[in-house]
Amino acid sequence: LHRGLIGRAEVDALFTAPAEVQALLDVEAALARAQAAVGLIPPAAIAPIAAAADAGLYDLVALAAGTADAGIPTVPLVKALTARVAAADPAAARWVHFGATTQDIVDTALVLRLRCLLDLLDADLAALAAACAALARRHAATPMAGRTWLQQALPITFGLKAAGWLDAVDRAQGRLHACRADVLVLQMGGAAGTLASLDGRGRAVAAALARDLGLGLPPIAWHAHRDRPAALACALGLLVGTLGKLARDVALMAQTETGSAAPGKGASSTMPHKRNPVGCAVILAAATRAPGLVATMLAAMPQEHERGLGGWHAEWDALPELATLTGGALRHAVTLIAGLEVDPGRMRATLEATGGQLMAESLMMALAPALGRLAAKDLVERACRRAAAERRALGEIAAREPAIAAALDPAALARALDPAQYLGEAEAIVADVLAAHERAREAPCPS
Amino acid sequence: LHRGLIGRAEVDALFTAPAEVQALLDVEAALARAQAAVGLIPPAAIAPIAAAADAGLYDLVALAAGTADAGIPTVPLVKALTARVAAADPAAARWVHFGATTQDIVDTALVLRLRCLLDLLDADLAALAAACAALARRHAATPMAGRTWLQQALPITFGLKAAGWLDAVDRAQGRLHACRADVLVLQMGGAAGTLASLDGRGRAVAAALARDLGLGLPPIAWHAHRDRPAALACALGLLVGTLGKLARDVALMAQTETGSAAPGKGASSTMPHKRNPVGCAVILAAATRAPGLVATMLAAMPQEHERGLGGWHAEWDALPELATLTGGALRHAVTLIAGLEVDPGRMRATLEATGGQLMAESLMMALAPALGRLAAKDLVERACRRAAAERRALGEIAAREPAIAAALDPAALARALDPAQYLGEAEAIVADVLAAHERAREAPCPS
Amino acid sequence: LHRGLIGRAEVDALFTAPAEVQALLDVEAALARAQAAVGLIPPAAIAPIAAAADAGLYDLVALAAGTADAGIPTVPLVKALTARVAAADPAAARWVHFGATTQDIVDTALVLRLRCLLDLLDADLAALAAACAALARRHAATPMAGRTWLQQALPITFGLKAAGWLDAVDRAQGRLHACRADVLVLQMGGAAGTLASLDGRGRAVAAALARDLGLGLPPIAWHAHRDRPAALACALGLLVGTLGKLARDVALMAQTETGSAAPGKGASSTMPHKRNPVGCAVILAAATRAPGLVATMLAAMPQEHERGLGGWHAEWDALPELATLTGGALRHAVTLIAGLEVDPGRMRATLEATGGQLMAESLMMALAPALGRLAAKDLVERACRRAAAERRALGEIAAREPAIAAALDPAALARALDPAQYLGEAEAIVADVLAAHERAREAPCPS
Amino acid sequence: LHRGLIGRAEVDALFTAPAEVQALLDVEAALARAQAAVGLIPPAAIAPIAAAADAGLYDLVALAAGTADAGIPTVPLVKALTARVAAADPAAARWVHFGATTQDIVDTALVLRLRCLLDLLDADLAALAAACAALARRHAATPMAGRTWLQQALPITFGLKAAGWLDAVDRAQGRLHACRADVLVLQMGGAAGTLASLDGRGRAVAAALARDLGLGLPPIAWHAHRDRPAALACALGLLVGTLGKLARDVALMAQTETGSAAPGKGASSTMPHKRNPVGCAVILAAATRAPGLVATMLAAMPQEHERGLGGWHAEWDALPELATLTGGALRHAVTLIAGLEVDPGRMRATLEATGGQLMAESLMMALAPALGRLAAKDLVERACRRAAAERRALGEIAAREPAIAAALDPAALARALDPAQYLGEAEAIVADVLAAHERAREAPCPS
Repeated sequence: LHRGLIGRAEVDALFTAPAEVQALLDVEAALARAQAAVGLIPPAAIAPIAAAADAGLYDLVALAAGTADAGIPTVPLVKALTARVAAADPAAARWVHFGATTQDIVDTALVLRLRCLLDLLDADLAALAAACAALARRHAATPMAGRTWLQQALPITFGLKAAGWLDAVDRAQGRLHACRADVLVLQMGGAAGTLASLDGRGRAVAAALARDLGLGLPPIAWHAHRDRPAALACALGLLVGTLGKLARDVALMAQTETGSAAPGKGASSTMPHKRNPVGCAVILAAATRAPGLVATMLAAMPQEHERGLGGWHAEWDALPELATLTGGALRHAVTLIAGLEVDPGRMRATLEATGGQLMAESLMMALAPALGRLAAKDLVERACRRAAAERRALGEIAAREPAIAAALDPAALARALDPAQYLGEAEAIVADVLAAHERAREAPCPS
Repeated sequence: LHRGLIGRAEVDALFTAPAEVQALLDVEAALARAQAAVGLIPPAAIAPIAAAADAGLYDLVALAAGTADAGIPTVPLVKALTARVAAADPAAARWVHFGATTQDIVDTALVLRLRCLLDLLDADLAALAAACAALARRHAATPMAGRTWLQQALPITFGLKAAGWLDAVDRAQGRLHACRADVLVLQMGGAAGTLASLDGRGRAVAAALARDLGLGLPPIAWHAHRDRPAALACALGLLVGTLGKLARDVALMAQTETGSAAPGKGASSTMPHKRNPVGCAVILAAATRAPGLVATMLAAMPQEHERGLGGWHAEWDALPELATLTGGALRHAVTLIAGLEVDPGRMRATLEATGGQLMAESLMMALAPALGRLAAKDLVERACRRAAAERRALGEIAAREPAIAAALDPAALARALDPAQYLGEAEAIVADVLAAHERAREAPCPS
Repeated sequence: LHRGLIGRAEVDALFTAPAEVQALLDVEAALARAQAAVGLIPPAAIAPIAAAADAGLYDLVALAAGTADAGIPTVPLVKALTARVAAADPAAARWVHFGATTQDIVDTALVLRLRCLLDLLDADLAALAAACAALARRHAATPMAGRTWLQQALPITFGLKAAGWLDAVDRAQGRLHACRADVLVLQMGGAAGTLASLDGRGRAVAAALARDLGLGLPPIAWHAHRDRPAALACALGLLVGTLGKLARDVALMAQTETGSAAPGKGASSTMPHKRNPVGCAVILAAATRAPGLVATMLAAMPQEHERGLGGWHAEWDALPELATLTGGALRHAVTLIAGLEVDPGRMRATLEATGGQLMAESLMMALAPALGRLAAKDLVERACRRAAAERRALGEIAAREPAIAAALDPAALARALDPAQYLGEAEAIVADVLAAHERAREAPCPS
Repeated sequence: LHRGLIGRAEVDALFTAPAEVQALLDVEAALARAQAAVGLIPPAAIAPIAAAADAGLYDLVALAAGTADAGIPTVPLVKALTARVAAADPAAARWVHFGATTQDIVDTALVLRLRCLLDLLDADLAALAAACAALARRHAATPMAGRTWLQQALPITFGLKAAGWLDAVDRAQGRLHACRADVLVLQMGGAAGTLASLDGRGRAVAAALARDLGLGLPPIAWHAHRDRPAALACALGLLVGTLGKLARDVALMAQTETGSAAPGKGASSTMPHKRNPVGCAVILAAATRAPGLVATMLAAMPQEHERGLGGWHAEWDALPELATLTGGALRHAVTLIAGLEVDPGRMRATLEATGGQLMAESLMMALAPALGRLAAKDLVERACRRAAAERRALGEIAAREPAIAAALDPAALARALDPAQYLGEAEAIVADVLAAHERAREAPCPS
């Protein structure tokens, strides 16, 4: 019922039964072309196999039943494909799935869909980075409270926070670019990796097939070496973790009491005034679930011998589930950040919440040249405690403290307590991040 | 495509959209009955609400779209239910979902389905235990090689191995019984746990509702305290781990070289002679995936305040997915163990594989009374090394070793090297386990 | 450097090398007693073995080196123990570790320390529950904002929140009680589970040894069936998850802007005004780490044959690490809750933060009898939106809305908007939880 | 007791208290140099700070106690360092830890040690790859049984298996190279990322510090963006997964019944004949534990605001523990593969285990040109079943089957059933992998 909430339609579609069957058939058709290209099978077999390689022609319920029976989808599918080809051209039917092993087809069909996944995510990542960059640029100098340990710590600018998001999103995109070479490769080894059933032309077939499908050509089959899909899982997990950090920040900023930034819509069945941050919830749920799925992919790696028992099956749902979560979380993140309602007034207002204590480090640093860091720290700590105990503003206490008054005249004290004067190099850092982002954007996504 | 392979139909059915909607509607109808019972709403509202509480009346596609929009399935469902009740009886429509919060309905509807899940698993566990018990009984004295570190270690009986399975399966069943009291409880607190919208009769409504649904009544809502579903997840994870151990044992016994027990059917697309242990693969895949899902349920526990943000959403798919895996793994385990083809001849044959070295401990223990444990161990180790180096049987070497010959006459030596004479208390242990199993069977499953 | 921050000294001590060696020696000594009791070894062997069973007598560095060499700590330890016994009484040395396998000793020695762990945790859990109960009792009627999705939702009382903690802590304690029977059992099977090396008296020895050590006696060895330690891991993981929920609540309440409850001490190297909630951080860190450790214990379950390869080793650090985390998180939780500085004034103040919107449900419920739930909800939602847009209080808007004025006179409206009038059954629920807690306290911890 | 078994001394040493303290002090000293270089502090402060930056000068027990108190190691350490500098040069003491935040120091000190870790792993990976390459080269044509689903499937060569290992090890090394740019970077932001306490020269200090330490310079602090260490964790997890696959293969090959390759030493306390594959156990234990640790690093990512609460603490032990496991598993893998005792005779012998059924695909492919793939498959399947039922060799059955005899003359049939004639392109694939390995070796590790 909630799949539409959790996922992203275009990503989810990649992992439906029709899409899976079509991808399997695409590989079978390409295999025939590649085998004909190297002279292993007659060119006349290409067309009948291609004609039958249409998922719409097959009964998915029967294929599912056959899969439950055989343990692998290719077993019933190859049977059905062969029958259909045979009906049109009995001679061509001999060459269906010729010399291939089920895992060659299943893995390569998965890789084809992972390529679509990576393309979809890449577009959304660009949109998310653009939304972060826009916030960073617009709010480079908008002061707000910086928070550590969930406590107000120092003033920052909202643009600095957005620049932190941007830099992390760019890194996540870079990692997805980098793992394409690892993941977008052909699987082709025959039953035990020797290509024995291809009459000495197996490596030539593999090269032709990789070319036909636009995939990389590894020197050896990776049937039981699963670091390739697991590396993709890691890259997705890292991306989701980064999105979780964004959503955490927004959810905390959107709290009733801090409410300096609010996500778009949301609803509640009983509380009319509430706008639940649904997008944040979906993203944080994904960030809670992704680690377990990445762990599953890693745990499945020690597969037995030439092709394993159970480990490969463990990947079948874990990777699509992770892809679904990633797609959905990224979609929500784009909406969230692009639609974020920033309230600079509330941001400024919360800077007052501590009665000036937020400026304690600033005051300490202003005192340090005269008193030394540790002495300054002790002095300011004492003033802070007194301010808290007497529920008065830090400035008030500080002005009456002789040691402070001796070191700072009233104007210097006021300056030391003004948040807008203690933003450090926030604007310059934002500019640096934006410049790095522009450079990163110029590097194209590897095909 | 492979859901039929991985899951169990009756379990999977519990977590489909129609089943979810029906369970939500069942709770809404029961809520109306309970509220009428305590006089909060007019009894006349019961029938119209009950009449509309039929999942077949609703457009699942529209509900899914509404869920994607609102973030929770109850928002669109309550709207649709109210409209339908209003069409039949406008007065009754006022009392639909009265004073309830979405999570009360969603969690209680989940609990109703978890009860079905536990009942289904309980039946399968009984069948699995019975199959293990039958093997333990039949093969209590069937000798085979015991293996540690994947090396032959000592002779055991196959019944002892099956008794180990049985004992673990009984423990898993006991844990599922024990967690029913934890998990099969009502969720009822209103929007923030105070039952404020129920006009002072909230606890009375909760009691009536728990009675109506046959669920336990906790003293306080558990909206953001998620140990209950997480505890169920743990019990399922432990069960799947135990099934994984069974499947690992069978898969290893079914290896071509050891082949002393074979699962039923299996298929291969290219290798006609192979019978792939598909059931083992599915179970081991579940055992690879379950830990990540349990971890997700645990990681989702620190939910914020009265109702959290993201943690609850993380459970929505993790628990059903775990239920599906458990249901499927258990179904395959029943088939696997009930249909196991045991080959006592092959078992006996592999006992010869080490040229008697398997009997090294037996020989050492036979020598220990005369020579002391450590001296005996050194002596036998030396003999073992010599036997391995010269590729001769241990018995042959031992017979010519003066220190051994001095301690054991030929008959005693032969006895010390006969696997059937060194089965220890295997049969008595099997009997103990079977007796404990009979006692466990007499304890009924708590309702 | 930070172990003292993360753990709890008494728990950590259980998993040091000296404690491990002592526990191993305790089992060896008890084994000799048990074997003498059933007449398997001479009673005279007891004293020399017992005398040598003192960890202080052994060179831990040499034992560590021997462990690295042999792969198991018992191999070098048994050698050293035998040598020491032999030096005192050569005849007794024959009976050291007689007929036992390494894993029998290692697992039983672990169980002895797990019993200490459970006792330590039980005492802390009682203290934590008492601290929660005290807060629940004292603040049963202290109003504060209830929050869902990190948004203010409805007024609750702080006592209700503390009662939720209490109920969850009691459940966690109950689970630890329940798993004692599972976990606190003897391991005794000999090399492959047949007790073959004990001359037909293995089961008698096991019974005597279990009695001697005060442990349960299972009908069969559980060398490769690891659900027992994994079940303990689950119970610890559930406890840590519950502690994480408490810490999350406190950390959020302690935020600068909401600051209605503050943990004790904390420090910051540069910001003198800050009191970092260190205890919350340690607990939340534990809640982040525990799921991965539980997953490891579950993932290690499918161990091979009679004793596995790698799975058992995976438990060696995972379970102690989890125990350490749990001990530390629980210690911090006791300090945190027992020392919590509650600020009812700030709690009341944050109830004003929404300009009355927090009372939207209350207003809706007040209108529902006259208008029906859905119509009331629409009306209140509209008023809320108007109040937000015009930045005015909800009460102001509501008073001027004709449909509301028609349904509620000014006194009824004021009542509908007063948080203290909309606490539902919070106090009664707190009383129910406290009563359940008293009943739970009367049930003694099983030995 | 078993740390020496599990880890690798040089790696473990990086994460001890003395190494941590030294790294923290190294950063403090470098910070002073960098700040002097940009004119922020007097050059005279450098020497006294550098002189005090020696871990040997500090009381680790007191630092641990201070860490337990403050929640972060830098708090007591900076205090102690300042005191020591002050004792030698009071003026210099003012400039200790000037304007830095604890996390800047702690993270950068971690990065320095991660660089050592990556260097150590890189050397071991090169050794492991060399050992795999040697086996691949030597045994490129050594026939053995290829196994899928733990069943014999087709003949392969042992060199092909080793080439698969090699290719995966090279990929793992490549991933560690690639993540250096991500991970080996400076952390420098001050308390909330603005560098506010560095008087406008923060970015200049950061640049000088990065240069001084030989680290990358990111445009913005990554205090609460933890994808960098999490990405390293992923790369380590992928490496351990690959090592787990190697160890699984060796452990299965070393089984008593298949025993075609044996690891070096191992011991057993009671069974003198056994050589337990201890290295395999340690590696597989690491592969069982690593996924949970990677998941922890990912789960810790959504950290709050400028610096989080708990998430960062969760990394403190998870990453070192993962490093330890990786270091140990890699060390054992080098020993295991470099010392592997390969037995080509046993390999050839197990090729006979199926009575020729292993050659079923070969026979099918030989028949396919004449009969078509599906018809050939049916025919061979029937022959296989008959051979199994009658316990005769497949060749015997096949020779008497008219359809087979018609398609293949006796010489062709014999050839179709000879494992050495059905190794496909194994040798060429091995050569391809070795060539790719040579190319990879030429790419230097990025500094």
